[in-house]
Amino acid sequence: MSARTQHVDFEKKFDATRTRVNQRLSELLDLYLGGPPRIQDAVRYVLLDGGKRLRPILCVWTHDLLDGTNDDACLDVAVAIECLHTYTLVHDDLPCMDDDDLRRGKPSCHKQFGEAIAVLTGDAVQSLCFEIVSDIERRIGLTPRHAAAVTRIIARAAGTRGLIAGQTLDLYPEGKRDLSAVSRVHRAKTAELIAAAMESGAVIADPVDDVRGRVRLAGLSAGEAFQIIDDVLDVEAEVDTLGKTPRKDLSSGKLTYPSVAGADASRARAAELVSRAKTQLEGLGDTSALEAILDFLIVRKR
Amino acid sequence: MSARTQHVDFEKKFDATRTRVNQRLSELLDLYLGGPPRIQDAVRYVLLDGGKRLRPILCVWTHDLLDGTNDDACLDVAVAIECLHTYTLVHDDLPCMDDDDLRRGKPSCHKQFGEAIAVLTGDAVQSLCFEIVSDIERRIGLTPRHAAAVTRIIARAAGTRGLIAGQTLDLYPEGKRDLSAVSRVHRAKTAELIAAAMESGAVIADPVDDVRGRVRLAGLSAGEAFQIIDDVLDVEAEVDTLGKTPRKDLSSGKLTYPSVAGADASRARAAELVSRAKTQLEGLGDTSALEAILDFLIVRKR
Repeated sequence: MSARTQHVDFEKKFDATRTRVNQRLSELLDLYLGGPPRIQDAVRYVLLDGGKRLRPILCVWTHDLLDGTNDDACLDVAVAIECLHTYTLVHDDLPCMDDDDLRRGKPSCHKQFGEAIAVLTGDAVQSLCFEIVSDIERRIGLTPRHAAAVTRIIARAAGTRGLIAGQTLDLYPEGKRDLSAVSRVHRAKTAELIAAAMESGAVIADPVDDVRGRVRLAGLSAGEAFQIIDDVLDVEAEVDTLGKTPRKDLSSGKLTYPSVAGADASRARAAELVSRAKTQLEGLGDTSALEAILDFLIVRKR
Repeated sequence: MSARTQHVDFEKKFDATRTRVNQRLSELLDLYLGGPPRIQDAVRYVLLDGGKRLRPILCVWTHDLLDGTNDDACLDVAVAIECLHTYTLVHDDLPCMDDDDLRRGKPSCHKQFGEAIAVLTGDAVQSLCFEIVSDIERRIGLTPRHAAAVTRIIARAAGTRGLIAGQTLDLYPEGKRDLSAVSRVHRAKTAELIAAAMESGAVIADPVDDVRGRVRLAGLSAGEAFQIIDDVLDVEAEVDTLGKTPRKDLSSGKLTYPSVAGADASRARAAELVSRAKTQLEGLGDTSALEAILDFLIVRKR
């Protein structure tokens, strides 16, 4: 098969999974949303329309890689992880945080609904993540043991040892502005949740412990590569392609990989991490889909 | 036994459970906190020192009422619920929300650490709630089925059908300013989580379904009574007693029970709801402790 054919296949498969994620997300919102229209509108606004859905796709494809048979449960977990990711974007964009007016190609939540609703929307979408996971047993029949394991993985990645540490260090950098400091921030703010997405997919497929650990390591490498490219795109891309304000990192003096090592060394480092992730997945099954997504992480334009 | 002796017993018992909750909260923070000192300090600041610990105490005492034997697991769930409650206080106090400088007798989180850290602290403390519950199985041996049930109860109370609906309606009231509108707000913003605390305690004690439903209804009545008195205290109390800024509701034109019905009718309504809660608990066991706490809800000064 030619590289071109493979690429077309990857895009089709990516779009197909994204469509499944989006449809299920919409169904779950119908099931779980309530309260005043104002907050329901805001939750739908931030969750629907837009987003690459990278984390849920990684979750689903990891489950597939390991020949998991809990497709429906895995899709719901994938949606829950997208909720968690989205809540962090809503809060990161707030004026007191990154103060960004644009997200996923449209006005960010607080620009559209005001700051108070944006705070509440982020809060609600985090709760929704855990409500979805805890309810999969009743809806679909995932065992409570799996549900508790997935909740643990996601909550840990979300907390002060994961995303929150990353955001804090992003706002208040500590120590030297060197590559190990950047790597620490990237790991906490991005790689932990990407690893959690892949590890959750693995847990639902129920493999032996060793596999789960290897998937997690692959996810951490992939996540770091993803964030390095995000930093590079922030420098190089235009707003129409990016869907968010470019050059934000520069103007805010943020600690990024290219600001320390330059764009070329950053791309080289991302490629090295992707190659490491592939090695970690080797021998676990048909890795072609995950390898394609790993390659995509470093060639993407947004 | 005289009323005076009973009262002393209640206070001793209340303080003893509060001490257990505070000690365990501190231990769990040592286990689960990580990341930069700045965020760990802020999480400890909002969670330790202060707070009546009403919700966790209701959780523990409901478990005791039903002769539950999972004391350690119940204590951890109680702590998790206090985390969820505390995160909502941190975010409610933000300038874009209620803009309150004082909480639990000290500067609110954003006054002490800045707005960005206050947003992240609230977020982290919500995640922590779910991390604690999902990990009880490993730490203590609560069955995953119970952990999933408790997660579901808490997440639902936290989401757009619970706390978030209440906060949204508090900020943007809908419809007429009448008692049914107040009741809708109170139920969502306060009663759902108090009911969740009691229902969680019941779930861990593992009674038949009917009992769980009755406990939930008692919690909803108790929660509404609690919030009515909160509104009354906002009008009547002084800052030294209250530990937060009084007259906030008045100055912000908030929809409260006394603003619609006056203080006397409010106290009468709270007493009626407490009496209803007692009826719902009747026959479930030795209800003396819970009855005492229900009485306390309406006589408290802060």
